[in-house]
Amino acid sequence: MENFTYFNPTVLHFGRNILSSLGSVMKEYGRNVLFVYGRNSVKTTGLYGRIMKILQDADLNVVEYGGIKPNPIISDVDAAARIGRSHKADMILAVGGGSVIDSAKIISITIPVEHPAWDFYTYQAKPKTAIPLISVLTLAATGSEMNPFAVLQNNETGIKSGYRSDLVFPRHSFLDPELTITVPRDYTAFGIADLIAHSMEAWFGAGDTTLIDRFIVAIIHEAMEFGPRLLKNLHDYDLRARIMFAATQALNCLTLQGKVSGDWGVHSIGHCLSYLYDVPHGASLTIVYPAWLRYFKDQIPDRIALLGSALFEKSLTPDDSIKHIEDFFRTIDCPVRLSELSIPGDLHQHIYETMVINKVNGANIKIKERDYSDLIDLFL
Amino acid sequence: MENFTYFNPTVLHFGRNILSSLGSVMKEYGRNVLFVYGRNSVKTTGLYGRIMKILQDADLNVVEYGGIKPNPIISDVDAAARIGRSHKADMILAVGGGSVIDSAKIISITIPVEHPAWDFYTYQAKPKTAIPLISVLTLAATGSEMNPFAVLQNNETGIKSGYRSDLVFPRHSFLDPELTITVPRDYTAFGIADLIAHSMEAWFGAGDTTLIDRFIVAIIHEAMEFGPRLLKNLHDYDLRARIMFAATQALNCLTLQGKVSGDWGVHSIGHCLSYLYDVPHGASLTIVYPAWLRYFKDQIPDRIALLGSALFEKSLTPDDSIKHIEDFFRTIDCPVRLSELSIPGDLHQHIYETMVINKVNGANIKIKERDYSDLIDLFL
Repeated sequence: MENFTYFNPTVLHFGRNILSSLGSVMKEYGRNVLFVYGRNSVKTTGLYGRIMKILQDADLNVVEYGGIKPNPIISDVDAAARIGRSHKADMILAVGGGSVIDSAKIISITIPVEHPAWDFYTYQAKPKTAIPLISVLTLAATGSEMNPFAVLQNNETGIKSGYRSDLVFPRHSFLDPELTITVPRDYTAFGIADLIAHSMEAWFGAGDTTLIDRFIVAIIHEAMEFGPRLLKNLHDYDLRARIMFAATQALNCLTLQGKVSGDWGVHSIGHCLSYLYDVPHGASLTIVYPAWLRYFKDQIPDRIALLGSALFEKSLTPDDSIKHIEDFFRTIDCPVRLSELSIPGDLHQHIYETMVINKVNGANIKIKERDYSDLIDLFL
Repeated sequence: MENFTYFNPTVLHFGRNILSSLGSVMKEYGRNVLFVYGRNSVKTTGLYGRIMKILQDADLNVVEYGGIKPNPIISDVDAAARIGRSHKADMILAVGGGSVIDSAKIISITIPVEHPAWDFYTYQAKPKTAIPLISVLTLAATGSEMNPFAVLQNNETGIKSGYRSDLVFPRHSFLDPELTITVPRDYTAFGIADLIAHSMEAWFGAGDTTLIDRFIVAIIHEAMEFGPRLLKNLHDYDLRARIMFAATQALNCLTLQGKVSGDWGVHSIGHCLSYLYDVPHGASLTIVYPAWLRYFKDQIPDRIALLGSALFEKSLTPDDSIKHIEDFFRTIDCPVRLSELSIPGDLHQHIYETMVINKVNGANIKIKERDYSDLIDLFL
């Protein structure tokens, strides 16, 4: 087993009507709140009004920044940080999915500084402090509610990439599965795919921790058992709860213990598709994963066969393992080829260029520039 | 799924030579250290000298309290707290197994107050603050290194019981599997049994969280695969590491998410045996668990059969499940009847009386006083 340090300070509040304690928790952090949210859904679902009432009842002093995009951009972060700074925000409340929480994380370290947020991503600046962040999750997918990661894109440089700092763990995250019941079928499926992909990135990371392998299989089994049932019963609280809990466990650092790191090569490619074509994150992963597995199957045949055999509880070859995983993504109606999205234009060339700019690579299974073209062909 | 709150702030430092960062971590908390340890092993293994050198190199000001017993007693806690108070301890360093860390946890909340430590156990006092606690683990078993629990006994009242406070989580715990290599075979086996029993207490707790069920099975599978191999290769670092990691995961609150609580009925009885006859904690659990399962098998047949079938990967009846679990405890040379320990005297009567004084019960599967006698007969 590899040496590791594990730390996760987020307080997770999970269950029905869990927002009843949001106001009292927030009051511990001061009075001035920067309330960050996404585009339409918080308003159409009525959650916006509910949150505002909680903040008023707690006598908190609120400024808002709405309109964070599903593939969030750094300019929103800088704009929100300016508002938070002038409001002397004591805390940030992020209400939404991974895009809103990821943005709020970088806002939390940008408010105390004078430079643009992107300086953190380019390692020109290192954060020393963060405004406390509290999140209310509305989409089961990214695990952002309980991890130190934030993925953002910079439309000026063409880069979409991840950032990690222990300063950006949410202090508290509130997960009421009821709040995810309005998530449409496609995004529910993308969330299920996302949590499976996160588990697989951990599986293919460097480091041999057998108990973590077992946990990873456990999380994917949970998604494979309850995911398809949820897609047939989108209003079922209990199924929403099981998927929401699994998504948090899939990327809250649990599965990275004893690992040098996860692999993240597939995410790195997926981010290029999201950057270029606004492909939903989960969908980008179901498109890229089968291709990535096929491309690297001769390099890591045993690891692929071990995963496939554990997931489907029978002895499978690497090829059969890949086919079963791809077939599962199909059963939950996720795309497994980019062509299914009917995007016009010279996709190969654009994707290739974006992969070069983003220096696409995996932390464990190395992807060289000479691999890019063949890899793209496998998922087009 | 049940509502729950999850919180675990302990920083886990795991791996070879991990003590190299102990000094720098401790210096963040001040200068005055109360160093708490057990009886002989820290001195015979040379760890005592290594720790003292680290503390000196870090220019820390140390007072010691050694001699914590394997079944720790509250009078040691009060005595150590007096020393820590007069030394104006900024932090506590606990070096040892669960008994030392459990004691240090209660010392950490007793130093700041004027009353005896036991007042916390009787709920006559509630802690408001705690001296920061840092632990160095030398025995893989209890999970105390990463949880908010502390079991102590009071020889004046005849009570041995558990206490929980979020204030007593260690701030940092250092787990170098190398430090467990000197643990003798019997205590190594008791540790393996302990981590399995902790997982089973979570399994039989109230609350239906399927992913947690999967995690529990994963942890017990890990113990069943690597435990017997470790007992044949006590000096194998990698096997020590896998068991140490599994023991931490078995009781660091991971498996209690979505649970009303664990059950802890078996622990409650086991504590009586440890109190009366100094039975090692893990051994008390392998003696009581088969009896408890047999006693309650008509009340929870499905849950027992589900566990047995998952653990042994074939369809088992409740009776066969119990037999397989008992047989596993035998294969790692743990006692499954009290008679194997050849303790003289009227055991039944003494155990019965101690169970009455301790109000033995489970949080989920209720044990009434009228059950005590028949339960005892099943493990004598």
